[in-house]
Amino acid sequence: MQLRNLLLVLEYDGSGYSGWQVQKGVKTVQGTLEQVLGDSLKEKVRVCASGRTDAGVHALGQVVNFYTTSSLSTDMLFRILKARLPEDLRVLNLFEVPLDFHARKSAVRKRYLYVACLEDSLPVFLRRYMYSLGKMKLNVARVREGSRTFLGRHDFTSFSSPREKNSSPVRTVFSLEVYLREPFLFFDIQADGFLYHMVRFMVGELLMVGFGKKDIADLEFMLAHPSCT
Amino acid sequence: MQLRNLLLVLEYDGSGYSGWQVQKGVKTVQGTLEQVLGDSLKEKVRVCASGRTDAGVHALGQVVNFYTTSSLSTDMLFRILKARLPEDLRVLNLFEVPLDFHARKSAVRKRYLYVACLEDSLPVFLRRYMYSLGKMKLNVARVREGSRTFLGRHDFTSFSSPREKNSSPVRTVFSLEVYLREPFLFFDIQADGFLYHMVRFMVGELLMVGFGKKDIADLEFMLAHPSCT
Repeated sequence: MQLRNLLLVLEYDGSGYSGWQVQKGVKTVQGTLEQVLGDSLKEKVRVCASGRTDAGVHALGQVVNFYTTSSLSTDMLFRILKARLPEDLRVLNLFEVPLDFHARKSAVRKRYLYVACLEDSLPVFLRRYMYSLGKMKLNVARVREGSRTFLGRHDFTSFSSPREKNSSPVRTVFSLEVYLREPFLFFDIQADGFLYHMVRFMVGELLMVGFGKKDIADLEFMLAHPSCT
Repeated sequence: MQLRNLLLVLEYDGSGYSGWQVQKGVKTVQGTLEQVLGDSLKEKVRVCASGRTDAGVHALGQVVNFYTTSSLSTDMLFRILKARLPEDLRVLNLFEVPLDFHARKSAVRKRYLYVACLEDSLPVFLRRYMYSLGKMKLNVARVREGSRTFLGRHDFTSFSSPREKNSSPVRTVFSLEVYLREPFLFFDIQADGFLYHMVRFMVGELLMVGFGKKDIADLEFMLAHPSCT
């Protein structure tokens, strides 16, 4: 009996789930995945994700690892998962990794994509994957200018909700691209990690700048004074 | 009190509806629309669609007309509909048309788009809008070659389910484009009208040709001999 560490890459539509993390009495991505993995491998499985997505958040390439003593081949398990996972939860890849690989701690970069629609109603087919900014006039150039404030290494306490108490609030944002494909505005953000709600705070504050309700100097102040918030 | 004929262009996600047509005890697009229109105009409204879509069929630009004696402006009604229609049913356009305009009978051209995925699992975000062809090998060039069979004016009885008994089974297909954007295969079909289930029959038979299970000559025979089926 040999212990293996397996890495899964997942795509999921979060609409039907109460987020990633297992909670009693509600359907979660982690709970659904652990159930199917447990049934397939005939042993209890605990999975670890690179990031615990909130309710309504989707994944294009969530990385997950788990340990198993099953001797089932990864090819066979991949086929079984394809057949057994619900249609809103798809496995894109599965392979063995070294025993010390940890989906969260070994991550060197994470990427989030936020999509806003500059119309007062959403295309019905995309309604779960973006939000509407209504008819308010947005200055996209200002949003883009403001986005540069976040680049680099900063204490992001002002742009997060309290959750992890003992970890450092310092993160490095590698890139933050804002691009418009009418009527959609994309925020494509890469960092070495994100604090709780950090991406939505950043995007929310940038939209405030674009709507003329905040100045870029306000973002700079918040970033420079993490304890003031 | 003046009678007006109003034209609506609708976009809808058919996933949550039992098709277009009003049926007792189930949620339909027509029923939902008539309810919201009736509440907004404070009179009973009956709508007529260019085509009655089946369950699971979506619309990018369904044309609908209805008569009203309400004096509410189209601008105001448009805003009200935007606010009151559910998020899977969106009004794209609304304007007054001559009293003799009829969404079905006045239509000169209709367009259907079918999307198949050449993989054994579907992208989770698109799963409601296409179907999977699995791992079977498909000869796309043969599908495209076969698609030319349908062009022009034919009796399409062999490619339909019985429904309308007293109407002519002759239709003119203006164009049928088959294009591949890996892993998606699109069928983009325009005709002066379609018999019941005609589009799905045509696409189904073309896929049979692509899978090598039928010859193009079989399609030609079916088209030339409408009474044999």
